[in-house]
Amino acid sequence: MTDIPATMQAIDPASAGGPEVLVAVERPVPVPGAGEVLIKVAAAGINRPDVLQRKGMYPPPPGAPTIPGLEIAGEVVAVGAGVMPELVGQPMCALVAGGGYAQYCVAPVGQCLPVPASLTMVEAAALPETLFTVWTNLFERAYAAEGDTVLVHGGTSGIGTMAIALGRLFGLTVIVTCGSDEKCTSALEIGAAFAINYNTHDFVAEVARITGGAGCAAVLDMVGGDYVPRNLQCLSEDGRHVSIAVLNGPKAEVFIPLIMMKRLTLTGSTLRARSLSFKSLVADEIARTVWPHVEAGRLKPVIDSVYSLSDARDAHARMDSGAHVGKLVLEIT
Amino acid sequence: MTDIPATMQAIDPASAGGPEVLVAVERPVPVPGAGEVLIKVAAAGINRPDVLQRKGMYPPPPGAPTIPGLEIAGEVVAVGAGVMPELVGQPMCALVAGGGYAQYCVAPVGQCLPVPASLTMVEAAALPETLFTVWTNLFERAYAAEGDTVLVHGGTSGIGTMAIALGRLFGLTVIVTCGSDEKCTSALEIGAAFAINYNTHDFVAEVARITGGAGCAAVLDMVGGDYVPRNLQCLSEDGRHVSIAVLNGPKAEVFIPLIMMKRLTLTGSTLRARSLSFKSLVADEIARTVWPHVEAGRLKPVIDSVYSLSDARDAHARMDSGAHVGKLVLEIT
Repeated sequence: MTDIPATMQAIDPASAGGPEVLVAVERPVPVPGAGEVLIKVAAAGINRPDVLQRKGMYPPPPGAPTIPGLEIAGEVVAVGAGVMPELVGQPMCALVAGGGYAQYCVAPVGQCLPVPASLTMVEAAALPETLFTVWTNLFERAYAAEGDTVLVHGGTSGIGTMAIALGRLFGLTVIVTCGSDEKCTSALEIGAAFAINYNTHDFVAEVARITGGAGCAAVLDMVGGDYVPRNLQCLSEDGRHVSIAVLNGPKAEVFIPLIMMKRLTLTGSTLRARSLSFKSLVADEIARTVWPHVEAGRLKPVIDSVYSLSDARDAHARMDSGAHVGKLVLEIT
Repeated sequence: MTDIPATMQAIDPASAGGPEVLVAVERPVPVPGAGEVLIKVAAAGINRPDVLQRKGMYPPPPGAPTIPGLEIAGEVVAVGAGVMPELVGQPMCALVAGGGYAQYCVAPVGQCLPVPASLTMVEAAALPETLFTVWTNLFERAYAAEGDTVLVHGGTSGIGTMAIALGRLFGLTVIVTCGSDEKCTSALEIGAAFAINYNTHDFVAEVARITGGAGCAAVLDMVGGDYVPRNLQCLSEDGRHVSIAVLNGPKAEVFIPLIMMKRLTLTGSTLRARSLSFKSLVADEIARTVWPHVEAGRLKPVIDSVYSLSDARDAHARMDSGAHVGKLVLEIT
């Protein structure tokens, strides 16, 4: 039995602001409730929503911790009511609604997946958020299936690199956009079929050229704004457009006859606000469909860099700079 | 064996314009090709796309006749290659890509449905276009299912009255909008659960009131423009928005975070440009799912008024006026 202290180090900003608000402070170790496990966090992934939350633009949903961090990996050190005590001592990674930037974090047991020998804790912590997001949006909401060509913006982001990796495993041809030739080269090395530098090329024209005018089956978009009508031009008949963020603006003007003539579908989703039962269902699906690839070493996250908890500000500064390729992760001792 | 003349009376406007361009002229009787039947037209339904075509805003698709008219009923008088000769003499209604405003019209046999004893030829001619459109868009594309509350604009239009009738048969609660209290009364008499006068009430507020704030599962929209963002406000979580026309404007501004937070789906379609095989598949589905209700007399179109072929201009003038409730039909001798 691990000795669980009463308090822990955690990032829990007193106010919104720049990376400098991310200071480690002392907080009580959370107690796992019914259906939850307490994980001694070995690593916590950093995601774009953490940045929005830091800036005060994305408050935690009701009941979620104010401590940021949506994905963790570590060892189970305690279980709440209704959870098998045999889980104590197991290495797990989990999708959480917050609380990851800390030495201890509670997670619903349904949102945990076992960390296989093929992954380090840093790698395991970098998987849940992008894996759940890409799986539910690109494969479920956008119905991407073997043989489909799909367009994913932000090719070297956490989402982009996960979309490339999952796309390769499941037979998609993934076209990505990136902001520099260097990032395009990185995206191609990671496995994108095509990478378009959006600063030097019009991605609408490039997608038309690449697909021989046919367009692609799906677009995974986190840009919003004027990208949406341009994305729709990239779609084939019966194409699907899925919004998961609006980094460049929340409003989009769409031309309805194009939607009608090509029978396009526009949809989108958020993950964090979904119910526990939904997230547990997704975890079950991922355990069946994706986790065998993880266990076999065929799916690993692309890791950009690793920081200590006390250097979380530097990790956010790097995400703010946009210079990263793949995931930023906190390694927590 | 019916004697088939070489020529026939048909409406085939020499130029775009107002209702006055709809003059009966002499045209060759068409010859059924492979997989087609020749129908001696007893009645032809009038639809909004016919008006757009008359105005020069909706040219017939490649290979379609320039004669307007998308739905007919009458007796089969000849068959093309590969079609059972036993069909000759049978009363049939059909969805056609054009050519309905005429004494004779060819139709793909896959797009024909038998006219049961429960229907007059005028009633049968008034079914196909709205039935195929509402079925494929409201029930298939928008997944409307028993128990769903749906919002349909143009409650007294051909589409609106069909949506009300089909909705009642398949367990939907149909909310419609209309432009006057008189039309609202008509829509309620036809079977709408709720009718909102959009000239005196804000339909967004009314739908919220009617649904207790929950919103509706689907919207069938033919208005476009600023109705689209208002429609999205009427939808519940996981709600579906289907565009089938853009009478008030082709562009719409959508707020992407709303789509993401409520996981909305926006889609749309056109019927006329779809493939023969698609339309035949829909006809097969309708034969299985809806036609038993037609045969049993449980589904009849709402007929506004009936005109002769030579009075087609008056029928279009009435559609232009917007005063009609239900379908306008040409009875052709």
